[in-house]
Formats: sequence, C-alpha cells, structure tokens
Amino acid sequence: MTSSKPRVLVIGCGFGGLEAVRALSRADVEITLVDRTNHHLFQPLLYQVATAGLSAPAVSAPIRHTLRREMKRGNLTILQAEVTDIDAAARRVALDGAETLAYDHLIVAAGATHSYFGRDEWSVHAPGLKTLADAFAIRARVIGAFERAERAVDPVEREPWMTFVVIGAGPTGVEMAGTMSEIARHTLPDEFRRIDSKQARIVLLEGSDRVLGSFVPSLSTKARQQLMRLGVEVFTGCKVTGIDAGGVTYESRDGDVARTHRLPSRTVIWAAGVAGSPLGRALARSTGVALDRAGRVIVEPDLSLPGHPEIAVIGDLAAARSHGRGEPKPVPGVSPAAKQMGRTAAANLLHRLSGQPAKPFHYIDYGNLATIGRNSAVVDLTVPAVGALRFSGYFAWLFWLFAHIYFLIGFRNRLIVMIDWAWAYWTYERSSRVVAQPPRAQELVDS
Amino acid sequence: MTSSKPRVLVIGCGFGGLEAVRALSRADVEITLVDRTNHHLFQPLLYQVATAGLSAPAVSAPIRHTLRREMKRGNLTILQAEVTDIDAAARRVALDGAETLAYDHLIVAAGATHSYFGRDEWSVHAPGLKTLADAFAIRARVIGAFERAERAVDPVEREPWMTFVVIGAGPTGVEMAGTMSEIARHTLPDEFRRIDSKQARIVLLEGSDRVLGSFVPSLSTKARQQLMRLGVEVFTGCKVTGIDAGGVTYESRDGDVARTHRLPSRTVIWAAGVAGSPLGRALARSTGVALDRAGRVIVEPDLSLPGHPEIAVIGDLAAARSHGRGEPKPVPGVSPAAKQMGRTAAANLLHRLSGQPAKPFHYIDYGNLATIGRNSAVVDLTVPAVGALRFSGYFAWLFWLFAHIYFLIGFRNRLIVMIDWAWAYWTYERSSRVVAQPPRAQELVDS
Repeated sequence: MTSSKPRVLVIGCGFGGLEAVRALSRADVEITLVDRTNHHLFQPLLYQVATAGLSAPAVSAPIRHTLRREMKRGNLTILQAEVTDIDAAARRVALDGAETLAYDHLIVAAGATHSYFGRDEWSVHAPGLKTLADAFAIRARVIGAFERAERAVDPVEREPWMTFVVIGAGPTGVEMAGTMSEIARHTLPDEFRRIDSKQARIVLLEGSDRVLGSFVPSLSTKARQQLMRLGVEVFTGCKVTGIDAGGVTYESRDGDVARTHRLPSRTVIWAAGVAGSPLGRALARSTGVALDRAGRVIVEPDLSLPGHPEIAVIGDLAAARSHGRGEPKPVPGVSPAAKQMGRTAAANLLHRLSGQPAKPFHYIDYGNLATIGRNSAVVDLTVPAVGALRFSGYFAWLFWLFAHIYFLIGFRNRLIVMIDWAWAYWTYERSSRVVAQPPRAQELVDS
Repeated sequence: MTSSKPRVLVIGCGFGGLEAVRALSRADVEITLVDRTNHHLFQPLLYQVATAGLSAPAVSAPIRHTLRREMKRGNLTILQAEVTDIDAAARRVALDGAETLAYDHLIVAAGATHSYFGRDEWSVHAPGLKTLADAFAIRARVIGAFERAERAVDPVEREPWMTFVVIGAGPTGVEMAGTMSEIARHTLPDEFRRIDSKQARIVLLEGSDRVLGSFVPSLSTKARQQLMRLGVEVFTGCKVTGIDAGGVTYESRDGDVARTHRLPSRTVIWAAGVAGSPLGRALARSTGVALDRAGRVIVEPDLSLPGHPEIAVIGDLAAARSHGRGEPKPVPGVSPAAKQMGRTAAANLLHRLSGQPAKPFHYIDYGNLATIGRNSAVVDLTVPAVGALRFSGYFAWLFWLFAHIYFLIGFRNRLIVMIDWAWAYWTYERSSRVVAQPPRAQELVDS
C-alpha cells in the first residue's frame, strides 16, 4: 500500500522539529520524524541535570509520548535513527545501518554541537553540554572532583581537584558557574572531613570584555556583580590557549603586553563555542549551500536552501535572518526562535503545496532571560507597544523560574521540577547527586 | 595529630555497611567507610529504574548526605574508592590508585554481583541488575528494542526485537517480566505505527519447577497465575545452555528425553545467578577462609572469620547462619538480613573492645514480599505469636507498595516515588523512558 501524499521528512526533534511536526500533522502529508535519541530535551534546563539539581527524566520527554495525539491522526512515523548523509539530488537521506529514506520535502532541524575552534583535542578535558549524556558526564566530574579532593593526601594534589573552570560566559557558562558555587558553599559543607568545600574556587573565563554578551551592557554588569557575590571569580578578556588534564592556560592583555597564565584544575567545562551539526556540511556537499564560520547553513529568507525550495533548515543549524520592518537582523540561537522557524517552515511547505508563494521568516523577539544562581537572574523583555523592560535580582529570578516551568513539556515534569526546586530552595540539597558507575571490582581484583 | 582510637574500616555502603556505620558512630572509634560509588542504593526498587518507572535519584541517596548527622560526631571519614585487595596479616586494604588503608577492625559488606555459572561470555548478551549503571543499560535495551522493531522492515528481523527473555524467576526476574509486560500492553500502545507493542512476547525462563522458589509453593502458584494473566509466558524446568546476540538456547525435559529449544530474542535479561563480591576471594587468599559455591564467605556464628575476630563479613557476601532456637538456619540474601548483620557486627565489635564475648547472629525473619505487576504481589509474613500470614493479589500489592515507600531513604525520595507511582497507576505512563545516548553524528558523517 503506497501513499500518494507528499512525503515530508523532519530530521531532529528539538524545539524546531517538534513544532514543525505539530504544525504539519493536521495536513494531508505523510510525515516521518527521525531523531537519534528517544526524547525531546528541554535544553534550557540541561545545566540543572549537569549540576545534580534535576534528574534526566524531569527535563526530557519521550518523543513518542509527546507526539501521541499527532500519531493518532495516522500520518506520522517516528524513527529513532541517526541521519548520516543527505543526497539532495536523489531526495534521499542515509541512516545508520544500510537504510535510506526518500522524501519530497525535507526539514533539517539537527541543532548544534560544541565547537572547540579547531582544537578538538580539548574536548576530552573540557566537556561541553548539549545532550543528556554530556550532562551525566559533567555531573560525574563535578561530584567526583570533591570526592578526589577528599581522598588526596597532598595539598598540591588536592588543589586542582578543588578548582573548577568554566570557559565561556554566555547563559550556560554563567548558570554552570553560579550553580557550582552554590553547591560548594551551600550543599556540600559538613559532608566532608578533610576538605572544606567552601574553599573551592569557581573560575569563569571569558574571551570578550563582559559576561552575557547577548544582553545589554547594564545587565552584564549586574550579572557580573551577582556572580561575584556568589563567590565566582570572573576573568574577562582572557583567551584560552591550552587545555590539558592538569588545567587551563590562558592569555590576558595588559595594554600591548600579552601575559600567559596557568590555572591548575581537574574540572574544566566548555561553554564557549557552538557549531552547527555535521549535517550542515552534508547539506553543503550535496547542495552547494554556503555555511557561516560556525558551520551553520545560510538559508534564504523563507528558510529554504538556494535552488532547493523543498529543503528547509531551521533552529540552531540555520544562519537565518529575521525579515520584519527595517533591515534583516540575524536570528539568535534560542528556543523561541527555533519554535517560530519550525512553524514558518511548516507553513511555507503547505503554501508551496497549494501553489502559494513562501513567506520570509519574521522572528518575534519576546526578550532574553538568564539565571545566575539562587535568587539572581537578569531579564530583558520586549513588551509590545511599551518597549524594553529590564530587571535583575530576586524578581528576575522568580520570573525566570516560572517561565521555565511554564514551557516544560508535560504536567508531570512541571510538578517534579517545582517540587525539586522548592526542596532545593529550602534545604539547599540537590536531589540528583548520584553518579552511576559501572562495576570494576572484578577486573581490579582478578587482574 | 594521630588518634589512638581503634580504627574501624567498613567496606561497602549497602544496607549492611550503612547500618554498621550508624551503630558505630556514637562509639569511641575512628570509622572509615569506603564505597566505590557515591550513593546508597535501594536495591529492591532498582528494577523500576531498569523498566523506566523511576529515575535513578529516586531510588538512591548520596552517602555523604545520608550520613551527614553521623559526620557531625567527628569520627567518620567517607572515601569514594574501590578496595582492590585485603591483607589480613598486615591489617591493610589496598585501594585503586597506590593508596593503602590500615585498620584495627574490618567489616566487609561488599555485596554480591551476577554469576553466569562459569559462562561469563553470556554477560554481554544478557546483562544483570545490580547497579544503577546496570539499570540504565537494561533500560536502554528494553526501550531501544521497540525502536528497532519499529525500524525493522522485514518481519523475520522484527520478531527477535519484539521478544524479551528474562532468565531466572526469583523476585527480580518476576518483577522485571511483569513490568515489561505492562509496558508492552499498557504504556506503549498507540505510540508506534508499524508495530503493535501488545504483540511483544515476554518469556520468563526458570530452571527449577516453580517461580519464586523462596516462597511457599501455594504462593508460587498464585504468582505464576498472576504472571500469566499479565501476558507473561512462564517456562519452568528449562535449563539455559546458550546465550548469544540472536537469542537463547535452552533444554527442557520430557521424562528422560531432553529437548533443545531456540528462542530468537535481542533482549535477554539475566536474573538467575548471584555470587559474592570478588573481595570474598581476596579474603580467602589472605585468611584461608572457605567460600561456598556462590563465592560467599563462610563466617563464624558471630559473623567473624576463623582466626580473625577483627574481621566480620556481612550482607550478601556472607554465607551466615541464624542461631536462634533449634538448628542454625541459612540466612537469605535480603536487605533486612543485611541490616541485622550490620547491627550485630557493630555490637560484637564494641563487645570485643570492652572485653566481652561476641554474640552469635540471630536473624529475625519478618517475612517475604514480591510484586509481580499492577495490582499483583505475594506476601508471606511471619507475625510473632500468630504465625504465617499469606496473601496475594491487590492487597498484597498495596502492602508491598507502602512497605517499599516506608523503607526508602529520605523524605524527598518517598514523595517522588509516591507521585511517580500514583501517576503511573492512573495514566499507565512510565516517567523515566528517556535514554541518554552519546552523540555519534560527527564520527558517522566525517568517517
């Protein structure tokens, strides 16, 4: 039984892909959604999994369950698979294994990965945070570092275990540094005997001259003050030149003189660079489309590819511009933008099927939020007909908190996150401090 | 600053080790607790992590947090480390890394691991369930099998992905099989398009002639009926002779004739054999103590080792006997027994320090519970002055439920587990279906 409906293939079930599938599921098309994991991840809260504040199931939802209503309409197939290549001429994608999938329309929402600016050897020493597996790896390192510090007998050996370096002061880096400071100062004290966890150093290294560079300078200043109040050492204007198992080497500038510094640390977290998914390069090879410096696909105003109106690229993988009033403006890599692109790509696909012209993408910016730690956040809202509304501190933090709970998928997740946050707020405990570890005793004793 | 207090070393923070530390923390001794993980695990609910019903943090508690009150007394050091060997003559243990730890008194509570009856090559195809890492691995296989079945185009390829085999019908095997059937019949239907998850086969293979062999035969019969009502195929009297990537080979007996059967399956779970931790062999080498067939240490009536009153072995690693009225009886490998041994070992240690004789261990058996699935369980209680109280079905299940919530460590865990269970009961959803997976796209596209 073959269907004569147009076949739409959506790659990736992040914010963009999920929204596109939802928008298309009522249309007379045959949809296949491919994702390499079985869950939609609420990435804005992933740092809480990495810092042991939330469990993985609290910030993620099984894709099949999330899309169960759409499944009932009978035109959606979900496959957990990895897309390894795209052949735009043949209109097929290759999956891991030997399979290929044919499509009439393709929406690529494969997201972003970490970029080490050509220094991929740093990745083993400074993991980044994009997936649940990344979050578990970082959690194991952070929790494990205090354990190693407690075991260390020699202070020279101990110090690097008590020094935590976060590279990159965007929202993720700021959240990580603020939360790690909270763990050291509030969660762990009195639980160790040889070390004083409050003595841990949390260092935030940033190449530019301010933290949260995507915010207005006044909020950056507020954020820096709040970080320092939480005990984070903030070093701006510092360029990282080396990362190895023993720590970080970086350069600062004193006028014309560059000074090289060494920061011994066993726990380094990478929050500096983001690059488009490797599927961007696959698209470039197959269609000749240009990529920007971060490996993102430079899309047409309607999010399609030049010469390939049947392919749209959305979300963090797209170097898109917003076409509202005035000059087109670059679209930031944030979840509301991905959702809006998902809706636009779906609408344009349906326009095209009914012979209408595609519309350019117009990003509606509602503002920008970042949290720094307990009771502190910065909020920069764009209120229609009013303008910018900027505030920081306790009320910004409350606003951040409810906004994030509101956008979480699934009532159960909202409930669990609320309980976990209330619990953490009153007790300073972090509910997810357990680290799963494979058994090794057998090998160690027997070998 | 050296302490002249007796140094007590406790290896392992399961039910036995935790109880021993608690009992000793008020005494004038210097305690070191070594565990290779950072958490105490509530093993009776681990199968729920493996079957996506609970998150890992809900069934485990950070050791340091659990023992924070004891830490305040100033005589407890907790180290996350792996004990690799024991030298009873020198009274030292070796840790991973080059460290050693000296002791005056040693309590070994290192627990048990899986035993494949000499067929260790089966372990890659049929993982067992002892640690959080094991539970995550099993969850990934079970959830992943339905995904692979949905991807399979050929029915011959699909069938082994839709067949789940649990080997061993003790409490863990019965719980796993019952829950997997519930997932296939109630959680997943309507979430797939090409497969009908209700068609999945769940097969429980048991070598002996009944399930739940540690219960009285009448409850075994009830359990078997409840399993079959849940759709589990129960094969007793079947001896597994081979496990590979494609399935299980087993023998059944028809009078004197042995028949060989082949069950194609991609998801096989091992719940059959348990063996003492490899540290049992280390003790045997160092002290000459005898091990039983399962590698457990045959202890003296007071849980110490022959010729080594300063060493006690407790919990699943001990082959202990209960010395009450009548003949000494073997102690089962259950958590109440481990806790009681922890208290006896601590008491005997303090007796010895004050020059009193050690007392033999007396196990007080309160009964035996096992759950089978939604609304079904078997309960065999020993009520003092009344005798045995046996029941099964809905009330047994409620009893099982509240007993497990009651014994969970930490108020927050009790709350989260209650919410998750209530949620699962009314919605049939399982809250922890997410599987963390490391990113592989980069390698696949680039190579």
